[in-house]
Amino acid sequence: MRAVDLIRKKRDGLALDAQEIDAFVSGATSGAWPDYQLSAMLMAIRWRGMTPEETAWLTGAMVRSGVRLDWPELPGAKADKHSTGGVGDKTSLVIVPLVAACGVLVPMISGRGLGHTGGTLDKLEAIPGFRVGLSLPEFRQALAKVGCAMIGQTAEIAPADKKLYALRDVTATVDSIPLISASIMSKKIAEGISALVLDVKCGLGAFMKNRSEARELAESLVAIGHANGVKTEALLTSMDAPLGRAVGNSLEVIEVLETLKGRGSADLEALSISLAARMLRQSGAAASDKVAERMIRDALVSGRALEKFRQMIEQQGGDGRIADDSARLPIAPFRAHLKADRTGFVHELDAERVGRAAMTLGAGRERAEDAIDPAVGAIVLRKPGDRVKTDEPILELHYRDASRLDAALALLRNACRIEEEAPPRKALILETVV
Amino acid sequence: MRAVDLIRKKRDGLALDAQEIDAFVSGATSGAWPDYQLSAMLMAIRWRGMTPEETAWLTGAMVRSGVRLDWPELPGAKADKHSTGGVGDKTSLVIVPLVAACGVLVPMISGRGLGHTGGTLDKLEAIPGFRVGLSLPEFRQALAKVGCAMIGQTAEIAPADKKLYALRDVTATVDSIPLISASIMSKKIAEGISALVLDVKCGLGAFMKNRSEARELAESLVAIGHANGVKTEALLTSMDAPLGRAVGNSLEVIEVLETLKGRGSADLEALSISLAARMLRQSGAAASDKVAERMIRDALVSGRALEKFRQMIEQQGGDGRIADDSARLPIAPFRAHLKADRTGFVHELDAERVGRAAMTLGAGRERAEDAIDPAVGAIVLRKPGDRVKTDEPILELHYRDASRLDAALALLRNACRIEEEAPPRKALILETVV
Repeated sequence: MRAVDLIRKKRDGLALDAQEIDAFVSGATSGAWPDYQLSAMLMAIRWRGMTPEETAWLTGAMVRSGVRLDWPELPGAKADKHSTGGVGDKTSLVIVPLVAACGVLVPMISGRGLGHTGGTLDKLEAIPGFRVGLSLPEFRQALAKVGCAMIGQTAEIAPADKKLYALRDVTATVDSIPLISASIMSKKIAEGISALVLDVKCGLGAFMKNRSEARELAESLVAIGHANGVKTEALLTSMDAPLGRAVGNSLEVIEVLETLKGRGSADLEALSISLAARMLRQSGAAASDKVAERMIRDALVSGRALEKFRQMIEQQGGDGRIADDSARLPIAPFRAHLKADRTGFVHELDAERVGRAAMTLGAGRERAEDAIDPAVGAIVLRKPGDRVKTDEPILELHYRDASRLDAALALLRNACRIEEEAPPRKALILETVV
Repeated sequence: MRAVDLIRKKRDGLALDAQEIDAFVSGATSGAWPDYQLSAMLMAIRWRGMTPEETAWLTGAMVRSGVRLDWPELPGAKADKHSTGGVGDKTSLVIVPLVAACGVLVPMISGRGLGHTGGTLDKLEAIPGFRVGLSLPEFRQALAKVGCAMIGQTAEIAPADKKLYALRDVTATVDSIPLISASIMSKKIAEGISALVLDVKCGLGAFMKNRSEARELAESLVAIGHANGVKTEALLTSMDAPLGRAVGNSLEVIEVLETLKGRGSADLEALSISLAARMLRQSGAAASDKVAERMIRDALVSGRALEKFRQMIEQQGGDGRIADDSARLPIAPFRAHLKADRTGFVHELDAERVGRAAMTLGAGRERAEDAIDPAVGAIVLRKPGDRVKTDEPILELHYRDASRLDAALALLRNACRIEEEAPPRKALILETVV
């Protein structure tokens, strides 16, 4: 099977069979396919798409390029959650200890931020000492001891995805639904979980700007999960404005702690509970979402979730004292404000612009090799629907470098739209795909 | 200008500007663009196509990636001819000495055969001693002395094309009209010619199977020529059956000699004269095609064209005695025949199958690194329109290896269609694109 013949087949719009997809993926892993043939195939896939069967085979082949974990020593249910990425989306840090506190194991492998969206690993690394780079034996040990662990992709997990993702990033082939789906799902399936909840973001600050694209991605992800024996459910959720109030790594950890103490923003708390409840119900730990939500609220109110978070931090080398004293987290030296230019109601606070402004301050990276400043970011003081008067602050920027502040403020010009009348209430959870 | 942004632009169907195309081509030449980005761009071009402006810029940038020859010491008109490739198409070997014998310089840079079509360089190399690998100073000297020379692409001529062609070959991005056009025309424009005649083949044995595709390619080529100050004209010609009678390198050189002696097949002679006449007229050496044809016929009849061929062969290190004694060319040891299975008229003799059969005997290469046997090939004994009786031979195969003969005969099954009634006469020259 020659690489050029398979590229031609896909280029001509024909579906590849399982064996052909295996050849492509194992060619990527072994190096038998040179990069220039891999990237030509990726562009042909970006062009022609893939059938659901092809996408499922691609995912399976990517899982088999590495290790699929299993947990014979931990017989209980294992569940995980994945978000397609948003601004201020720190739900993973809330959910993982919450679900673990309810008795379901959570072996989460997650990623870093790129562009205007944040990354779970970057947020965790804002906690002094926290190690996301556990080896697989350490991961296993952490899960056995605490019931949850959060790490980055290891060399053993879906190496074909690592290889292909790096190429996609530099060949304009990232935004392909089958490639995105296979990349996400191969890592999740490799975790050896039995249940998965997906948060597919949709809106101004999301990767998918429109609802039908977001639904298409959600359906693709759910189909792959089912094809691989993982109970999978997706929520389409709105990402027009930042989720919660904090954007920036250390600031988001502080908001997570507040949420685990029952003092979180309404939207962040509601979404976290919805996602966590579905994980419990899918895992069989709760008979219904209603029962699951009661369990979740109990874990929050009792302080057990916060305690679980502290245990996980300490297990992974971090300073658990932040759970009680968030002043131990990095703090930026300076503050500035974006102010309202008129009196009225906030109709829109563009999540992408806020994300880009935070990235410009140093909270995120433009390129994979950029360094991050954990302390900087933004606090949303007025959310869509809130009333505001001329010159009152809408955003509080936490910064270190004044020249970056100017660039961030320039990005925020027109990020906030204020009108005289109150806006209609918008739903956070748009629909469910099962 | 980041490579990934330009790939994304083309992927999204937008036209690149001149500067962006320059960045791509100079990235290919210098190595600043890694192969995986080049091949992603090539697939995006294969997908989205290019505007005539983009194609002209691409060609210009590929010319500028190397040397564009000029000929201050040779002030006369310079013309060339290019064919998109067919089976039995040895017109270049006829035309080059013909046109040079009429006083127009012909600095031809041509290519090798790949797949079922032959290559001019392979045919020339059937002549003992003939060197196609002249350096540019040797090329210049040969042109000054003889008036014509035929060489292969040197490292100085359009190196970006060399680089991109090698990648296209292994990434299924060969058959893109803008990429084909830029590849052909960059080499021709770099020759420093003022007039160019193109023979765009169309039919069963051609790269372009249908007329509208062939016309599209012809129009693209002519537009690029004009945009680069070269008088360019294209003929669309039929390539359903082999041109002339010989297919295979040494056999084709023998047919060239016969043609230069006025004893060639009618179709080969007619096409050679048409193409050569246009070169003379475009160069200003003749006021009309009619006058040009008279000059050409005179060069044939007088033996001046044959003499020019001998001079060129000797200037390039070959054995000029073949001009009088074709037995000095390599000859295959064995003969076999494809015979008619019924009595009637030949309606079709599939050029591609005959080409593939000759290639299988060793006359061509499947891959660029394959070796060629100059002696083997086929002689067409009955052409479309000819009467034939059951068991009379249609093709005479010249072979060396009996196992290859069987494979060749298998390919030829059904290559010849015989019917009771005489077929309608088909035109060889289908149309002209100026």
